[in-house]
Amino acid sequence: MTKKITGIAASNGVSIAKAYKLVDPDLSFETRTIDDAQGEKDRVNAAFLASKADLETIRTKAEASMGADEAEVFTAHIMVLEDPELLSSINDKIDNDKTNAEAALKAVTDTFIGMFEAMADDNPYMAERAADIRDVTKRVLSHLLGKELPNPALINEEVVIISHDMTPSDTAQLDRRYVKGFITDVGGRTAHAAIMARTLEIPAIVGSDNATKEISEGETVILDGLDGVALVEPSESEISSYQQKGNEYAAKKAEWAKLKNEKSVSADGKEFVIGANIGTPKDLDGVIENGAEGVGLYRTEFLYMDSSELPTEEAQFESYKKVLENMDGKPVTVRTMDIGGDKHLPYLPLPEEDNPFMGYRAIRISLDRDDIFRTQLRALLRASVYGQLWIMFPMVATVPEFRAARDIFNEEKAKLVDEGVAVSDDIKLGIMIEIPAAAVLADKFAQEVDFFSIGTNDLIGYSMAADRGNDRVSYLYQPYNPSILRLVKNVIDSAHKYGKFAAMCGEMAGDPIAVPLLVGMGLDEFSMSATSILQARSLMKKLDTQEMAKLADQAVDCETNDEVIALVKANVSAD
Amino acid sequence: MTKKITGIAASNGVSIAKAYKLVDPDLSFETRTIDDAQGEKDRVNAAFLASKADLETIRTKAEASMGADEAEVFTAHIMVLEDPELLSSINDKIDNDKTNAEAALKAVTDTFIGMFEAMADDNPYMAERAADIRDVTKRVLSHLLGKELPNPALINEEVVIISHDMTPSDTAQLDRRYVKGFITDVGGRTAHAAIMARTLEIPAIVGSDNATKEISEGETVILDGLDGVALVEPSESEISSYQQKGNEYAAKKAEWAKLKNEKSVSADGKEFVIGANIGTPKDLDGVIENGAEGVGLYRTEFLYMDSSELPTEEAQFESYKKVLENMDGKPVTVRTMDIGGDKHLPYLPLPEEDNPFMGYRAIRISLDRDDIFRTQLRALLRASVYGQLWIMFPMVATVPEFRAARDIFNEEKAKLVDEGVAVSDDIKLGIMIEIPAAAVLADKFAQEVDFFSIGTNDLIGYSMAADRGNDRVSYLYQPYNPSILRLVKNVIDSAHKYGKFAAMCGEMAGDPIAVPLLVGMGLDEFSMSATSILQARSLMKKLDTQEMAKLADQAVDCETNDEVIALVKANVSAD
Repeated sequence: MTKKITGIAASNGVSIAKAYKLVDPDLSFETRTIDDAQGEKDRVNAAFLASKADLETIRTKAEASMGADEAEVFTAHIMVLEDPELLSSINDKIDNDKTNAEAALKAVTDTFIGMFEAMADDNPYMAERAADIRDVTKRVLSHLLGKELPNPALINEEVVIISHDMTPSDTAQLDRRYVKGFITDVGGRTAHAAIMARTLEIPAIVGSDNATKEISEGETVILDGLDGVALVEPSESEISSYQQKGNEYAAKKAEWAKLKNEKSVSADGKEFVIGANIGTPKDLDGVIENGAEGVGLYRTEFLYMDSSELPTEEAQFESYKKVLENMDGKPVTVRTMDIGGDKHLPYLPLPEEDNPFMGYRAIRISLDRDDIFRTQLRALLRASVYGQLWIMFPMVATVPEFRAARDIFNEEKAKLVDEGVAVSDDIKLGIMIEIPAAAVLADKFAQEVDFFSIGTNDLIGYSMAADRGNDRVSYLYQPYNPSILRLVKNVIDSAHKYGKFAAMCGEMAGDPIAVPLLVGMGLDEFSMSATSILQARSLMKKLDTQEMAKLADQAVDCETNDEVIALVKANVSAD
Repeated sequence: MTKKITGIAASNGVSIAKAYKLVDPDLSFETRTIDDAQGEKDRVNAAFLASKADLETIRTKAEASMGADEAEVFTAHIMVLEDPELLSSINDKIDNDKTNAEAALKAVTDTFIGMFEAMADDNPYMAERAADIRDVTKRVLSHLLGKELPNPALINEEVVIISHDMTPSDTAQLDRRYVKGFITDVGGRTAHAAIMARTLEIPAIVGSDNATKEISEGETVILDGLDGVALVEPSESEISSYQQKGNEYAAKKAEWAKLKNEKSVSADGKEFVIGANIGTPKDLDGVIENGAEGVGLYRTEFLYMDSSELPTEEAQFESYKKVLENMDGKPVTVRTMDIGGDKHLPYLPLPEEDNPFMGYRAIRISLDRDDIFRTQLRALLRASVYGQLWIMFPMVATVPEFRAARDIFNEEKAKLVDEGVAVSDDIKLGIMIEIPAAAVLADKFAQEVDFFSIGTNDLIGYSMAADRGNDRVSYLYQPYNPSILRLVKNVIDSAHKYGKFAAMCGEMAGDPIAVPLLVGMGLDEFSMSATSILQARSLMKKLDTQEMAKLADQAVDCETNDEVIALVKANVSAD
């Protein structure tokens, strides 16, 4: 009988392919006293050679399919294997302790890892070096134990990835031509794997609990990302029925595609703006292809994270200019550096924090390290003449923080004008609303800013006191909880009271349950993953703003998240 | 010239005493190759003996001044020194590696610590064992290097403690007869050191930045906890002027003391309730002495934390009964287990979390581990006949969470009634309001609960997205930020709309700036440290509720924390 696995529908579409398990084998071993030291040393040597051969194949493959940058990590791994000190220390350990190869390898590499980690406080690159040794040790150990490690970079047929979780470094190794979907055990709709799947426009299920247990390598899997269901070793009739479902979804997507050059307008003719969220200028293709009316969120931290030192004013200027030029006069909202929390820079060591999400991050760093902040603002100001620039500050909690940021902006603007540099006189300044205190005090902020952009991911996290990345409490990530809807409504109403613009750039802005409520509340701009835009525009066309306003009023008077979902489903026909 | 140090005024009063520096000396050393192995082994042996002698003196002293329980940690330390394997491993290391005593000690103890820490995942006691070895190593090393460690348990004259920070284990070692105050480099008004100082009614300054640098051992220090100022090596005239200030404060306290048996009533005759926050039945003396009208917060987690296994129903019953009986019919609000966040139980391993404050804690654990929760509720139900019991659930974010907790309560109540056990029929059930979402949705919660108790410490933390324990962002812990005041007002108004009772049990309830605003908002109960009660009652007597209501309306319409402080100071005469 076909096995059925359910989880959270994280990215739409239907795929049918072989399972590829991205799961480490059991690499446990026993420590033994040995007689034949030479034999153990020969085993280590052979495992080193085999590992090196693996890594060279993977590197060649990765360079071809993903480019030299992505393949660099494998060069670092090969260098670890070529380090003579490592091999000789293991050999010494075998000679001195008469211990087996596995135990000697583990003991020596643990020492090295410990050493590098101890140095990581002063020199963050040491942490990467420790991670490299850990990865390589795993590979050598797998050869010693005769177990096979998954080598995702070597995938050369269409597969559905089955994994406990997917980290950014996992996805970096995947050849995107062959990966037709993900199923993970853990995570929610906003996990990295889910976001990556939506960007690649491939179906995904996350939070399945047991996919890695229930699905074996090579089994045929139907992945229905529309309903969050996977079928393992399906029957012929199931395959054909899901092929049809996939075709119907494809047909719907084709319908949506016709809206590419249309405006975003409700059934009763009210115009809204649908923008896209981007991380780098590379994302612009998708933005333009999906008919975005602007960039509602340009996350500039990738400029900082993809670099080995602080990005220069010039490098930043080029990126900002490129995005503004490509958007061809459409508004581009750039968020200033949002570092800290779970985002770290190797060259800017941040303090160890017990609760980094409630710590030193974003505007708090920018105001403290205004040298970094001023460089970014200068780059933005210089780029401002190439398009319509909006700038927003992340994690603003108090009115004085916004004023301090605005003062620094004005100082840098005045300096550039003095230097004779051309800058736009029509740059809008706003804030992210992602801290509950700012949402509550939105009427005061509205008198200071040009616009708000509601960052729902963090706003929900702080409002519910729940880290959405934490499986134990992710059930409290409730976008439709009436408390959240009240805060969102207060922000929109406060903006409009003072004639200001209200946008949203969190996950919620593209969510089919939330869109009707946000249309009802009169949100001005919906900024979302590029791949969600056309579906949202299609949904918007069916909504009447007066009816949705009534629906939103009912929603904020509900008691629970589930009640709101039921209310919307009962009143808005699903698409 | 007298040196002046400023910081946060954390506990009122004036003390003049010698500085006692609770600061570790520099214990760094060089690793050397040695010829005289026996010489190094002799040094280690001598350092072990000297350390053991230290610890025996300290243990005897600690037993006499603080009791056997507090002294137990020193027995554990002595046992480490008596472990023959430890000494022989160090001797072997010296013989084999020809390394100096310090390096051999460090290498061997690091291995042991690593071993125990590796086992700590399965057996949390191993983490304590690792900590013991770390402490003992520090002591042996200090003898090897001829440096003196501070031995706070040996203090036998009046001192002001100067410390970078004070952990609970530091304060456990202090002889409270001799400690006349604290000055710390870090921390805020709600840091452990500050709370401890207020409990002991000794002055304290926290967050001085540099007290440990600026003050030397044995220097005379004037500690003015009223204004957060310390004078080092003061002149005679300074000493006499501060003695006078201390006397005036003592006189004021004597005035307050006269209010002990009076009601808590405003100038215009409105009655309020002032309750006390307690951690254990031991705290009841201070509660009764300070004339509390009830216990507004009984933090039951100490029952769990001071135990080596889950406390039995019987043990809990005895504690709850004792508090209820001692309060003699006055209401006692018991908060159910608030574990997680920064509070861990050795016998209940919790998952490692990136942001524990936004993780698995309090009611989230109780609903998940309802075996533990039911035991606590049964103990509470059985104790309920001995007084007036109110029960509240911490960290409730959603209405369904409260309903689930209430259902479990009702189930256990029905079971006890079935078993023929007497239980009160007048137990009130409420929730802590400490999560922003619950504050925003208070009108919905008010239709379900009997009462609210606003926990301001966490409410402020989540609302501002700032961990108050994190020095880099502690400036965002803003109790008077208008956003916080709006949330508090919404909670009080919502309770009253449905005829429910609104209490507050966070730090804010006893704060002289907040009390006028809370009186204006009509808060029903103010629960605070016992030592703040009489001052608050004195302040309340001077406030007119109508005027304060107007003041509160102005405050919620301010833009910033500082504006609110200025507003209150301009309208309410300081006491």
